[in-house]
Order: sequence, then structure tokens, then C-alpha cells
Amino acid sequence: MEEVSNKQVVLKDYVNGFPKESDMLINTSATISLNLPQGSNALLVKNLYLSCDPYMRNRMTKTEDSYVPSFTPGSPMEGFGVAKVLDSGHANFKKGDLFWGITGWEEYSIITAPESVFKIEHTDVPLSYYTGILGMPGMTAYFGFYEICAPKKGECVFVSAASGAVGQLVGQFAKLLGCYVVGSAGTKEKVELLKNKFGFDEAFNYKEEQDLDATLKRYFPDGIDIYFENVGGKMLEAVLLNMRLHGRISVCGMISQYNLEQGDGVRNLFCLVSKRLSMKGFIVADHYHLYPKYMEMVIPLIKQGKICYIEDIVEGLESTPVTLVGLFSGRNVGKQVVVVARE
Amino acid sequence: MEEVSNKQVVLKDYVNGFPKESDMLINTSATISLNLPQGSNALLVKNLYLSCDPYMRNRMTKTEDSYVPSFTPGSPMEGFGVAKVLDSGHANFKKGDLFWGITGWEEYSIITAPESVFKIEHTDVPLSYYTGILGMPGMTAYFGFYEICAPKKGECVFVSAASGAVGQLVGQFAKLLGCYVVGSAGTKEKVELLKNKFGFDEAFNYKEEQDLDATLKRYFPDGIDIYFENVGGKMLEAVLLNMRLHGRISVCGMISQYNLEQGDGVRNLFCLVSKRLSMKGFIVADHYHLYPKYMEMVIPLIKQGKICYIEDIVEGLESTPVTLVGLFSGRNVGKQVVVVARE
Repeated sequence: MEEVSNKQVVLKDYVNGFPKESDMLINTSATISLNLPQGSNALLVKNLYLSCDPYMRNRMTKTEDSYVPSFTPGSPMEGFGVAKVLDSGHANFKKGDLFWGITGWEEYSIITAPESVFKIEHTDVPLSYYTGILGMPGMTAYFGFYEICAPKKGECVFVSAASGAVGQLVGQFAKLLGCYVVGSAGTKEKVELLKNKFGFDEAFNYKEEQDLDATLKRYFPDGIDIYFENVGGKMLEAVLLNMRLHGRISVCGMISQYNLEQGDGVRNLFCLVSKRLSMKGFIVADHYHLYPKYMEMVIPLIKQGKICYIEDIVEGLESTPVTLVGLFSGRNVGKQVVVVARE
Repeated sequence: MEEVSNKQVVLKDYVNGFPKESDMLINTSATISLNLPQGSNALLVKNLYLSCDPYMRNRMTKTEDSYVPSFTPGSPMEGFGVAKVLDSGHANFKKGDLFWGITGWEEYSIITAPESVFKIEHTDVPLSYYTGILGMPGMTAYFGFYEICAPKKGECVFVSAASGAVGQLVGQFAKLLGCYVVGSAGTKEKVELLKNKFGFDEAFNYKEEQDLDATLKRYFPDGIDIYFENVGGKMLEAVLLNMRLHGRISVCGMISQYNLEQGDGVRNLFCLVSKRLSMKGFIVADHYHLYPKYMEMVIPLIKQGKICYIEDIVEGLESTPVTLVGLFSGRNVGKQVVVVARE
């Protein structure tokens, strides 16, 4: 059977500290057959869009008890993406179908568990959205905000890493509900986006603040009811000081901590008692059964222009290593996507 | 009107670090009239039992945003106690009634808000129990375990400061429900009590353990479903490493942190995400409406001998300063009570 070239992004070895572009390599010598063997119930797919997400950092380290398995050095990396079915051995998919889910960082992949990916039904929106607002990050924002925070109209909401894939959505969901919403980000440009595009009430550049406690007091004179946690460390410490009684913290991620050998210590957890706070972590994969309900909510919001969604789209599979690394210095503006092919 | 002597325990000044006996003084020159003035709706009471509780440490520091107001230097301290009404200006109380609630660290007190104390209905149990199993610590164990932890039969429960007023009850409630229960304490004697009196499955002396993570792995090879947090700091860090997926942490107190200028940093809060944990703090005072329900449950358990309750009873108001200080070095064995008068 004829084989075609299949460029791949391979993890060279486990990473310590801040990941570098050189931790990955582009393998140009792999090939793949574009037909599945007889009797297979896998999918043979062409990858269109690949997603760079902060959680991937954890997969680059050797761990045994993480919630996601470590990558295998020498093998292609994997992550969320949008792909097109070229050959199907599974009853739910036929040639030409599109889906989003975990796929390889390569031009073509074999999906051995087709039950774990989501067939794309709405194609009248940009397909790349299925790596973000219509995919894992969208579900993360939806579940993490509505289910974990139990938000009420008029409450005061703080979102860190607020211009990222998840943060920009959480802020807008909160505004749609009638909350007061403040976001933090790491550049002036992102702060402008938060205020002018995403409709946050206020936003600040955490890198320009000397005293995060004082900053939060300025934006939340009466305290924070809901904190959507994406960064951890010093920001969490400052937030705890500013939470209101019975506040809720949805712990989605802690990007400031992923590259540290030893995490920053949070020294004021007694605030959980004195302010009767709850902190709850979650993994969106546990809650995908809510995806159809989320789609019912979000598709009309997109079509009616009630929600704004910004992507940072980079061209070419070769760009994935530098693009992934850039997430950890905040180089991306909006949801980070890499285009492998447009169709 | 005739006045009698009213010995008092007075806070000399706000405390930094570890409290000392000399931070308090016994004032022997105060006097009080044993009759209320005409038209008062207060209670004039004789204090019988006073309770020493860890949360009192917070009141000895000057803070403006604590959940309980700071004590006033130069004035008598106050805390939970059992008292007898000598004169009542309030319709709900008459002379001779007993109650538990916040009272002064003195022989006689005036209770200006009688609505805030609980009339004692059951007098066929030791009255001192109303500073513990039948009072605030009992309600704390009840609410913090059943409501915050949502425990299920067969789950693995870890209780720190387990021989204290709250911990000993949490462990027994968990055993009654059919959980596997391990407790930590700070002396060999307390460890023996946990195993032989309170029926914990296992117990250990945290002061003799070099590596709390390894210790917890030994007692919980499959991980911890529920952690009842009384100590904070290093213990919390070790527990986070050993929690099971979807575990729950009821944050009742953090006694290891109360005397520190700067709390110990907890560096592994990302476990909240990777293990989908929830941590929830509470203040029992928010939940006293459940007290009748708790009494319905616990009185039969006491009368049927299904629950064991150990008090550390010290004689005399003059003993309160040294007794309170002893809480923070773990000198007490069981619930710490001071007898001011027996009737």
C-alpha cells in the first residue's frame, strides 16, 4: 500500500523547568499509509488545526500519578485538534467527517479510540473554534464557571490569565450574567483587549503591579466573590486576602507554577476558614457529558455576536514547538492555534 | 446595691508569636452587683466551666478583618462556657437556668445578648460537656464532617489533631459510618487514646515521623478520600500528595500556623486540579440552626455508650492563662476545660 510522508513533532526528552523549542524536534522521515488495514475500527485522519494548551506542560515531565499520562520521548506529541476523516473503520464516522479531540502532532494520525473524539456538527463557524470556544477550553470555561462557582448576578468576579482561551470566555459569561468582572493579563495589549473587546469592567497588567494585594483592593473595594484561578502562586495569595465571605475559587490551572521545580508556597490558606471559602479543582474531561448542553448555549451566542472570541493562529506544523513554548511566557494573544492544513 | 468580688482574666496586650501565660493577668480587684438594674434585658450569670479553644489565639492579635473581633487589652477575655443564671431580664431565661455560649473569663458575667446563648435542656450528662461534645466543638465536628465532607461508608478518612475536642468526635463519627480512620497527634499517650479509646483504625505521632508523605502512604496505600484539617502547613502539603481523586478537605482550623508571623507556604495546591479536590472552610457559628438536629443524634450516642469523649479538666479561674497557652504546645489531652465553679 502506498505510503505518504508524515511530518511529526517529537518530544526529545522529558523537560525540567521552562520548556524550550529544542526540547522538541521535527521528524521529516516518517511515512503513513492513507488507508486503514482491513478490519480496523480506528480512524485515519488528516490533522487541520492543533491546539497549544498550558496543561500540556505537565505531559512533558515524567510523572506517574498525573491526571494525564506523560508524553513518550521519541514519539510524536499529542493534543487537542481538529481533524478530517480520510478512512474510517468505525460505524460512527465516515470519510469526510470532521471531529475535535486528542490527535497527534503530525500531518496524519490514526485515532484508535474514535469514541473519545467529538464529531463536528456545526460547520458554519470557523473550524479552528473547535480547539477553543467550541472545544475543550470552552467546556472548561463553561463548567468551571457555572458549575464550580455557582455565580449570581451582581457578584464580583476576578479572572487571571484573562485573555487566554478559557479566561476570555469566563469573563464574558460572567458579564452576560450581570457580574462585575476584572481580569489580569501580562501585557498592555492584552489589558486593552480585555476592556475593549471582551467587555471586562476593568483589567490590569500584573507585571506592572508592585503589590497585588493593593491592586486587588483598588479594583474590588468590597472584595471578590468568585475567583477563576488560572495562575496560582503569588496571585492566589493576594486573592485569598481579598476574597469576600463565602467566596468560591474555581481552580482551573496554575500556569505560573508549571515550570518551577518547587512551587511557590501559599501562606494564607487560613483565609479559607476565616472567610468560609471553597476552592475546587476540576478536570474538564470528567464533564464532557455536558457538551451538548454547552453547545446549545454557546452557538447562538456566537451567531448573535454576543460573545467575542480571539485566536492567535500560527501557520505550519513546524511552528508548534516555538508556539507551545510561547504560552509559558504569555507570547500568545488569545487562544493559541496552529494550522497544519485548512482542509 | 451590694457588690461582690469578681476575679477576672485580663489580656494585657496583643500577642505576637507564641502566647505566654504572662500575656494575661488575674485581676482580683473587680466587683459586680449580683442583681441586674431595673429594666435590663440582660442576664447576670455565674460562670461554671470555661472552654479553652484554639480559635482564641486569633482574638489575641489585633486584626480588623478577622471572623471574630480581637479581645480588648485591659478587659476580661471571653470564650465559650457553661453558666448559671442568677438574675434574668430576658423572657427566655429565669433564675437557675443553665446555658452554654460566649461568656467572660471571670466569676460572674453580664450577658447582654441572651439570644446568642443556648439554654441547656439535658442535665443528665456532665455539664462540662456543653463546652465540648454538646457545644461548639461538637457542632464543629458534626457540621464539618457530615456537611462539608459528604462522607460515605468505606471511605478513607484522615484527621489531624485527632485527640482534640473536635478531632476525637470526627474520628468516631467516621467509624460509626463505617469508614477507615487514621488520626495524628503529638504524643504517644494521645496515639494510644486514639487507637484504644476512640477506636481509630490507626494513629501516629507526627513528631516522630521524618517524612509525613511516606507516613501517610503507609497508612493510606490507596489514598485519602476525606481529610479533616485541623493543623495546616506541612501536614496539609503531605496530605495533598496523598489525596485520592475527588477527595474532600474540610478546613476546620490550622493550629500549626496560628503563632507564626508568616505562615508555612503550601506549594502543591495544583493537586486540587489534578486530583479534582475540594477544600472548604467553615465557621460553625454560621450553622447553629442545626444544633437541635445534632443533639437528637448525639445524646442517644452518649447515653448508649456508643461514643467516647475525653476532657482535660483543670481547676480554678486562675489556671486559665497557663491552660490556654498549653493548647498550642499540645499539653492538653482531650477537650480542654477549666472549672470556675461546679454549681
